[in-house]
Amino acid sequence: MAKVVVDVMLKPEILDPQGQAIQRALPSLGFSRVTSVRQGKHFELDVEGDDDPVAAAEEVARTLLANPVIEDFSVRVVEAAK
Amino acid sequence: MAKVVVDVMLKPEILDPQGQAIQRALPSLGFSRVTSVRQGKHFELDVEGDDDPVAAAEEVARTLLANPVIEDFSVRVVEAAK
Amino acid sequence: MAKVVVDVMLKPEILDPQGQAIQRALPSLGFSRVTSVRQGKHFELDVEGDDDPVAAAEEVARTLLANPVIEDFSVRVVEAAK
Amino acid sequence: MAKVVVDVMLKPEILDPQGQAIQRALPSLGFSRVTSVRQGKHFELDVEGDDDPVAAAEEVARTLLANPVIEDFSVRVVEAAK
Repeated sequence: MAKVVVDVMLKPEILDPQGQAIQRALPSLGFSRVTSVRQGKHFELDVEGDDDPVAAAEEVARTLLANPVIEDFSVRVVEAAK
Repeated sequence: MAKVVVDVMLKPEILDPQGQAIQRALPSLGFSRVTSVRQGKHFELDVEGDDDPVAAAEEVARTLLANPVIEDFSVRVVEAAK
Repeated sequence: MAKVVVDVMLKPEILDPQGQAIQRALPSLGFSRVTSVRQGKHFELDVEGDDDPVAAAEEVARTLLANPVIEDFSVRVVEAAK
Repeated sequence: MAKVVVDVMLKPEILDPQGQAIQRALPSLGFSRVTSVRQGKHFELDVEGDDDPVAAAEEVARTLLANPVIEDFSVRVVEAAK
């Protein structure tokens, strides 16, 4: 079994109001070093079987986790198959 | 500037209905290899300055990105300061 | 068919960092009249059939939309069955 | 003070994978009456002062809660000013 992470972010050209709200809240809390915040979704998948777990997760991401018109996603294995 | 990622997940003992919905939707789409899905939030921060960007992002995460009572978070640098 | 809305909010005693970030961002944008912000999830369901659509949506909410340990939900019909 | 609700939904023509995942999970749980699910964000704002609280919340929504390019929002008062 492999543990695979899928991160989904709005495409860079699409305004992210959630991230902006956080960024604008930071100065009043004394966090002046953070100059940009973008918010996305993070998924952790357990993938069984010997075949390429990244390919399997990419298919799931494309179908069910992200809207490819407005979002990009990245896939990475964090724990190899055993 | 360093690019720092903060991932926020519900603690493992807390039920995640969003992840469960995705997991339950998978078989009908032919994705039988994915045995568990958990959903969280993903943040990408640009952190300026020479001091430890991870420590800075951890403080932001604790204050503004996660509720430590119900959520865990992890912080990692994806692009080192230049 | 009835259109039913389910709103899911963290319980009042549970800190909502997303809402707090928005609230803290408001003064710098000149929105000084908003004294509290809480963020939740909003679902719009189409429910078929003659039986009570609210009862059906409540069951869905309890099972798949909310975690009753940390969240409350409310259900209301916005468009009656035809 | 008025309590104002802002609901933010992806525009109808934009695919909502979160809502779709829930919809696809429903049959396996025996919820065959729900034919469509869309997921959005729900905000509850406390607005002070005598001026129109809806107008104030609309301005906040446009600036900080929604991305008007991909999302629609609606605003309604749930508890009148006292």
